This record gives sequence, C-alpha cells and structure tokens, in this order.
Amino acid sequence: MIKVTFLPANITVESTEGSSLLEAARAAGVYVETPCGGKGTCQKCEVKIIAVDNEKKKTVLICQTKVPNHPITVELQKSADAKGQFENFEDPTKYLSEDKTQFLKKINLSVAPAALLDGLSDADRFTKAFLKAVDCQSVDIPLNVLVALPEKLRENNGEITAYYYLDNNIAFCVSIISYSSFGIAVDIGTTTVALWLVDLETRKVLASHNAYNSQVECGLDVISRINYAKKNLGELKNRILKTINELIASVCKDAQIESNKILCVSLAGNTTMTHLLLGINPEYIRLSPYTPVVFQPQIYSAAQIGISVCENAPVLIAPAVGSYVGGDITSGLLCTELANKPTELILFIDIGTNGEIVLGNNDFIFACACSAGPAFEGGGIKHGVRAQTGAIERVAINEGKLEVYTIGGAPAIGICGSGIISAIAELFKNGIIDSAGKFSDGNGEYILCKGSQGKPDITISETDIENFVRAKGAIFSACQTMLDSVGMSFNDVGKVYVAGGFGRFLDLDDARVVGLLPRVANDKYLFLGNSSVIGAYLTLVSEEHRNKEQDLARKITYMDLSNEPKYMYHYTGALFLPHTDKELFE
Amino acid sequence: MIKVTFLPANITVESTEGSSLLEAARAAGVYVETPCGGKGTCQKCEVKIIAVDNEKKKTVLICQTKVPNHPITVELQKSADAKGQFENFEDPTKYLSEDKTQFLKKINLSVAPAALLDGLSDADRFTKAFLKAVDCQSVDIPLNVLVALPEKLRENNGEITAYYYLDNNIAFCVSIISYSSFGIAVDIGTTTVALWLVDLETRKVLASHNAYNSQVECGLDVISRINYAKKNLGELKNRILKTINELIASVCKDAQIESNKILCVSLAGNTTMTHLLLGINPEYIRLSPYTPVVFQPQIYSAAQIGISVCENAPVLIAPAVGSYVGGDITSGLLCTELANKPTELILFIDIGTNGEIVLGNNDFIFACACSAGPAFEGGGIKHGVRAQTGAIERVAINEGKLEVYTIGGAPAIGICGSGIISAIAELFKNGIIDSAGKFSDGNGEYILCKGSQGKPDITISETDIENFVRAKGAIFSACQTMLDSVGMSFNDVGKVYVAGGFGRFLDLDDARVVGLLPRVANDKYLFLGNSSVIGAYLTLVSEEHRNKEQDLARKITYMDLSNEPKYMYHYTGALFLPHTDKELFE
Repeated sequence: MIKVTFLPANITVESTEGSSLLEAARAAGVYVETPCGGKGTCQKCEVKIIAVDNEKKKTVLICQTKVPNHPITVELQKSADAKGQFENFEDPTKYLSEDKTQFLKKINLSVAPAALLDGLSDADRFTKAFLKAVDCQSVDIPLNVLVALPEKLRENNGEITAYYYLDNNIAFCVSIISYSSFGIAVDIGTTTVALWLVDLETRKVLASHNAYNSQVECGLDVISRINYAKKNLGELKNRILKTINELIASVCKDAQIESNKILCVSLAGNTTMTHLLLGINPEYIRLSPYTPVVFQPQIYSAAQIGISVCENAPVLIAPAVGSYVGGDITSGLLCTELANKPTELILFIDIGTNGEIVLGNNDFIFACACSAGPAFEGGGIKHGVRAQTGAIERVAINEGKLEVYTIGGAPAIGICGSGIISAIAELFKNGIIDSAGKFSDGNGEYILCKGSQGKPDITISETDIENFVRAKGAIFSACQTMLDSVGMSFNDVGKVYVAGGFGRFLDLDDARVVGLLPRVANDKYLFLGNSSVIGAYLTLVSEEHRNKEQDLARKITYMDLSNEPKYMYHYTGALFLPHTDKELFE
Repeated sequence: MIKVTFLPANITVESTEGSSLLEAARAAGVYVETPCGGKGTCQKCEVKIIAVDNEKKKTVLICQTKVPNHPITVELQKSADAKGQFENFEDPTKYLSEDKTQFLKKINLSVAPAALLDGLSDADRFTKAFLKAVDCQSVDIPLNVLVALPEKLRENNGEITAYYYLDNNIAFCVSIISYSSFGIAVDIGTTTVALWLVDLETRKVLASHNAYNSQVECGLDVISRINYAKKNLGELKNRILKTINELIASVCKDAQIESNKILCVSLAGNTTMTHLLLGINPEYIRLSPYTPVVFQPQIYSAAQIGISVCENAPVLIAPAVGSYVGGDITSGLLCTELANKPTELILFIDIGTNGEIVLGNNDFIFACACSAGPAFEGGGIKHGVRAQTGAIERVAINEGKLEVYTIGGAPAIGICGSGIISAIAELFKNGIIDSAGKFSDGNGEYILCKGSQGKPDITISETDIENFVRAKGAIFSACQTMLDSVGMSFNDVGKVYVAGGFGRFLDLDDARVVGLLPRVANDKYLFLGNSSVIGAYLTLVSEEHRNKEQDLARKITYMDLSNEPKYMYHYTGALFLPHTDKELFE
C-alpha cells in the first residue's frame, strides 16, 4: 500500500499503486471539485504533487492521475474563482500571528525529591516547584492529577511536565500524564456540527469531521428546539453531546490518538445551542425580555459538561452577545477585519439556519439575527441534503439542456445549499419559475435527477422554493435594515464577508440572481467558509485571538430586528426573485 | 404514639404509652449505662425528665420509668465517675465560642429583574448582586447552579438564597436551591467510621451513626491496608465510600432530610485513610522516606470524591502532620487546651487501631504514632466486637464469682474494648493470669459467658491477651518515649486527654492495673470520646476552629518513633502486666 497525504488538511490514506488519486482523495474525505465528473476537461482539480523523497513539485489534474509506486504528498490548490475571492479556509493558520501563547500552557518542572521528615508531601513539593516557575496566586490540582502525582514524580526523578491554564490568577493543572497535547475546535450549528482535531504543539489541524446535529430530529430551527426543550431539555443535551462525542471518536480514529490526550476544548455555537449543550433551559431566550441565562459561560471542565476528552480539559465557550447572536458570530468575526482595526465598513453575513448579520467599522459594531431556516443546509427542502459526496452542488440549464454536478462526481443523493441556489437561479433565468417562485407551467416541481432502480426522482418543488425565498429574504432584508439603521447603504460597504458551511461553493452570480447577496463589487466579497469553527480553532491555539474575541463581545451592540419597524417592509420586498427593487442586484 | 426526645443528642422517637423508657432510649440509639441489667439497683441510669408542656424537671431512673401519655424530653446526665472526670462529649457545642462564622456561608440576594437589551444575562445579574454583597474577587457558579438559576430567579422576583464558601478569595456557590443547610462530620477510623449529621443553622447534631469501616475485610491495620492497596486501590476507595454513604443514608433517614441538602462535609482520618478515600496510592507512606502524597488536600467537591450529598458540597479534610499522625489527631486536638494557649504540659492519647500520642505546651507540640492494632475496638480478639448493644463492657470477679455487664443489658454478643481491659484487669487481680499474661492453670482461655442454644462460649484467650498487651505496651511506651525526648516525666504532665471511641467507658483503675495509662492524679484525666469526629464537627460549624486546626497542623512536630532508640527499650518493659517498672502504675 502507498501512503498518500493530502495537504493542507494533512490527512493520510493508503492506496494501491495505479489506483485513481481522486478515489484516494475521496477516501481521505478531502473535497475536490470535479464539475466535469473527472473527465479532465474542467481543470478544476489541479493540484501539486510532491514525492516524499523528492522535493520537486509537479502540477497535475487529480482526476487524471494515478497513485505512483512511492509515497506522495498532494497539495490542494487555493480555490480561486473569477466571481469572488474564495479564500483557502482550509488553512486557518493564516489568521495566526507570531505570538504562540495559548490558553493551555505547558511547563517542565523539576520537583525536589522526597526527604525524611521535611514535612513536605508530594503535593507540597510539586506546588512549590510549580509556583516557583509560574506566576500565579495558587495552583489547583484536580483529584485525578493528585492521584497520578506520586508515580509521575518518582518515574523520572521529579522531572514532570504539567499542562495548565490560568483563570482568575489561579493555575488549574489539567494533566501531568500527557506528553503531547491536542485540542478540539467545535462549531455547534443548529443543523450541522463541525469539529477539528488540533495538535496544540504545532497548531496544525490533524483531522476534521462534520455531522448533522442529532437534535435536528427534535426541530429544525432554534425556536422549535426551545419549544422541544420545555419537556425534553435532558434529551437535547444528550443529543448534542452524542454528536460531539461521535465526532471526537472519528477525528481521534483518523489521527490515531487517544481522546484523553485532548486537553483543551474550544466551542462556538449560537446562544440556544450553548444553553442546550450545558443543559440550561433556553426558554427565556424566546420570551420577552429575551434574556439568556448566560452569555459567557465560565470555564467548566469537559467532564462537567460531558465531553469525552481528558476529564479536566477546560472548555472555552465563545461569548454570545444577544439572544440570537451567539458565540458562533463572535468566533466567526475573528476571521474578519472587525477583530482588528477596520479601515472601512464591514458587512459580515453568516448564512446558516439562523442568519446573522454584523455591520461595523472602527467606531461601532452592530449585530442582528434573522431566522432563515435550514434551507441552506438542505433542511426543509424535500430532497435536501448536507454538503457531502453525492450532493447536487451545481445545476446548469443551457438551451434547455439540464446539467447536474454532484460533490465528488458521485451518483446524486440529494441537493445541498449551493445546489438549491444554483437550481433556483437557473430555473428563474430560464423562465421556468417566475419572480414569485411559481412554476410557469403550473407543474409545481422540477426534476433534477431521474430516479433509477426504484429510487424516487430528485426534484425541487414550489414549497422548496418558498422555503428558500423566505430564507434568503430574511437575510437580505436584515442586511438592508442594519444599513438603514446607521444611515448607510450597500454602496458604503468596503468588504462583505460571507460565512457558512456551504460558502466555498457559492456562486456570486447565482446569489444575486436569487436576491441573496446585493450588488457589491465582486472583489469586495470574501468567502470564509465555516468561520465559527475557524474562530474556535483560533481561540484554542492563540491567547491573542481569545482576547480579541472577548473584546469583540464587549464591543458588539445587539440589535433586535423585531424592534426595527423597517425590517418587515424590507422583508416583504425580499420575498421575490430577486426582489421588488431589482436595482439592488444589477 | 408519644414523642420522646433524648438530649443532648436531640433524637426523637415515638413510643407507646406505658412502654419502657429504656426501650425507647435503645430505639433512639442513645446509650444508657445499665450495669445492673435494668433492675433499678445500680442507679447509673438516672436522668431528668421534662414534660414538653411543663417546665418542671423530674429525676428518675430510666430503667424504672414508663413512657407517660404526653410528649417528654429526657435529659441524659453528664456521666460522672469518681475515678476520672468523664466529660459529656455528646454535647460538642461546649467547645464553641460565640463566633458563629462558618466555612459554608449563606447570603440573601436581591437580583435585578431581566430587562430588554441591557446586555445582562441571568448569570450576569446574579454575579453582580453577589459581588455587591460579598467581598471577593469573583464568584464560581457550578454548572448545576447555573442550570437552576433561571427558575430560581423568576420564582421569587429575584430574591434568592445562596450558600457559598470562600477559597483563595473566590466564592464558590454551592447551592441556590436549598432553603436549609446541613453538614456532616465524619471520623474515618481504620476500624470504625463515625458520622454526625449537623443542622448548620442551629449547629445542633441531629443524628449520628457508627459503622465498621468496610475496608476491615481487607486488613486490620493501616500497614495491611497499604499492602492491599497495591493491587486493589480502587476497591479500598469504594469500600470506604460505601461505608460513608450508608452512614449518610442512615442519619438522613433518622432526621428525615434529603441527602442533597447536605451542603458541607468535614472529614478527619489518619493519613492512610485520607489517601484511600481520595483513591491515592498510600504506598509511599510506608516506604522510606515516608512521604505522603498529600498532608492537606485542597477542597474537592463531594461529587469529585464520590460522597453522596449535594454534588457541590465542599469537603474539608483535616490536615495530617506526618505519615502516621493524621487529620484525626489535628482534629481531635481541637478538644484540648493545645488548641488554645495551654498553661501546663498536655499529654493527648488517642487509643485506636493506631495509637497516637501528642505532647505539648505553649512552646512546642510533638506528635507520634504507634501501631496498637484493633484490639481496643474488638479487632484481633476472638470474641471481640465493636462497642454496641450486647457487647460485654465490664467484667467483675468478686470472691471467685464472675459478673458480666453488657451494653444495654442485652444478651452478650461479644466483648468490646473496655470489656477487654476490664476482663484482663480482673483476671490479673484475681491471679488467674500472671504478669506475662499466661493463665496460671494452663488452660489458655477463660469463659466469660457460657454459650446457650448452640452458640459458642464467649471467652478470652491467651492469644487475645497477647494482642492486647502488645497494643497497650505500644501506647504506653510511646508516651514514655515522648516524655523522655523532652526530658520530662509523667509527673510533669498537667493534663492527660484520652480519646478513642471507647474512652467513655474506660475504668481508670483497670487501665492502670493492665498498664495502659500511667499513674497521674485522677483529676488530671479527661476523657474525650471520639475527639476526631468532634473536631470534624467543630471545623464544620466554626471557622474559628478551622483556623485553629490549621495553626495546630503548622505547630506540630512529627516524631518518628522508629528513629527513637529508647522506644524499643520502653516497649519491651511494657509487654507485661502492668510493666516491668510497677512504680509507674502505683
């Protein structure tokens, strides 16, 4: 078997010589765009190949290349698209500075040996050495660390490595057992959960996995979850823990590490998701005066919350700023200029089950949320699926001829967010649906993919389109309302950051055809991908970013759209394709 | 049913009118001395009776009194004995001062109501109110308190009662649910565990229970436990937790309270017992240089340790001062003048499976330990039992006629510590055994109680006597060695405190006949009973005593007897009845 390593995700798989490199990429779970279906015609899958024992790089099309007889490394290209500057968000290290200070710290101690009748216990001598080396008021030694202490002290003549963090000037000793330290960054979305495993020494992402939030069965959006929680709070807590813990098992398996070596957890999620994870009743988020139980949870240990990593691992939860603007947004903003000193007006749009909009510059930051529903993640759409192999991600109708592209070129299993946008844009451009989203022929649905072998057709229906239009309408009108409230317009915006799990595959033209994104110069658009998980990664590996996040949370002013009289007006106009005011998109 | 309340233990039971008051006392688990077997001849069970609706006190013999037709309170007398000042250690409140400050604190807060868009979550408003009322750096809100917070805040318009404690200037919020607070004081003996349930508001002891430490099956003394722990550390931890948690269930049942209302735990035990409770390997206590893993454990929560009370309840563990002088001794010393400013030389003798001796005055405090074995608690004695109803506690041989007294006057089930001392003293005084502990008639054993209905005889054998002589020899010679080391003798001692679960029933004359206690004026002896559990009680209900305990731990100098050349010399002399140097006991 030949080892094939894919960068920047740094995932290695074993393949047989002569097999398809595209297959190896799929086995690695690495996404490669192949709209031509692997025929070598679209050139989208261009990569650089490096033989492990040879520094020379070779540029090839992944779909046309076979696995050689020696180990290779495959560098996936930074995707670039003429229609917008797609950033390579698979390399989150680009956001990091030279300052490598992390929340979880490591110290090597030389603890004095035990001496007869000096009145010093093991714990006393460890504490003494620790307080000499670390500037803090006291050191908290959890019981399991104390239990491990006597053997660790004697194993190596008092030479001991301690991982710890500081909180309120007290050092909490997380582990003296581990000789390597890993962390996880997690985005808890209402629909999808993304989890990265990070080597805290190198700050590299070792593995990543996504899964549906298993709470989805209990309601598609936050309001239905809050309602469900009235009687089933414990179930919702257990469901999200199950999803997270299964993802932890998956990344640990991929990277072949034990989960108890994960010594730090960084989570970002919306306010309701954070409440549910902690088992806190989210009801008061929904009831006037819309007060969450907690915006910034204190640091609890993984064991206290129920996350299956090292018991004492601190869990950093990104601070929320409002009932519907959660830690996923403060976290995501770390990928934008708002985290520093912006020189222009910044618009940040996070497209998920909830749409969150942030508008700010160096003087102010406003944030608001609107309920988009899960359409962008394939929810509430009859044949909707999460972005995954086999999901229809792009649709083209050329002179009446339908072309359907799936992720990985695999047989279609359903349609994901970008596919829905693309399909609706094509249907509208070709006059198959009108600006109200109704089928001109009165059919009520359109077949994207004929079912075979007893499987049903994959279709898009008027109901799907209605759901989508409400979703995009909510987001677009929220942007308008925020700009209105500060007396500005889209023309004043210097940069538009678009975040969301599907962001990478979003076609700007399509987004404007359907009225999701406004007319702003293409080069002002920046697609971040899942900025929430990136932000969780950044706070995990960089104290600097954790401080920035705290600053952001303090600076952001939460705006409640339901208090903004203009929101309904804008929303009504946005319930058309693209909008009643077409100029906004031309 | 008529309510009968026994003071000072304050235990109430229900009895039928006309039934025996002695039976009611037994049902209440209150110990009443009835050497005459309830015949009204010994006068030992004199008590004061007060009708609840009538202030008049009446002095009666409990064994000759019947339960009247109205509720009564029975005041048990302070036992007084011409042979020594037996203190009424069932009323531990006598050690308390006016200062009612406790480790666990209570605060009533008025938390501001939730307001629209003020940016304050429930946790923020609670924290604000707390920090306004309590002088500390920050407040730690455990997850289960946070979970309870929203309902508690809204239940009573923000009026909320919080129980908390301060550690390192941080307030740890233990509960906002409980409207009453209880605590437990626990003495973890090698052989016996004593547990008191305390009302923290009134500082009253509501109920108390004793049980064998279920680790007894794994070895009778600390050395055998340490050896057993090599392969079965987890088992020993689980066994002591089981004993403690069963005792908690018993006291809660007695007092009819829920165990989750127990918000604070105060424990005292020897160094090995503390290690085992925490699941810490005690091996290094036994191996040179005899270094415990921890002398003063930090404050862990009950849930972290596995004690079945309120999850967040802080667990105060009395500080140990040496490998074999543990927190039970620092705790016990709170009952002596050493906790204050002693004006004379104090000798403290704790007679248990380990014997611990403390010698001190206002200038120095020395402490040492010797292995006595479990003989004083009925262990290692063929028919030995713990002090309980039916245990032979006193033996008299008058003109060849044997009299045997059992606790509660019940049929004999075995012989407890005081019974063993009494029996050996009588056998020796009557020439049945010689000063080497051998039976003059060569029989090898003496029948204390003929077995009936197929039950075996209750006997005392030469092996029992040997075990006992080694035990008393160890303790007596330890006292001698300590006095030697500071150039003093028994004549210089101003007060002798004798502690141990059996202490109340100890006959000073018998103790000197067998050579356990030296010739010191009777009025210098003070019997404390289980001073370890009393000390645990004191630190639970009084911050002043907790501070005194910390001071004691700092002041005490640990003396390792195995380093004292004179110890063996003294020990050899003490292996006789009473001693090779008989003058010490005359």
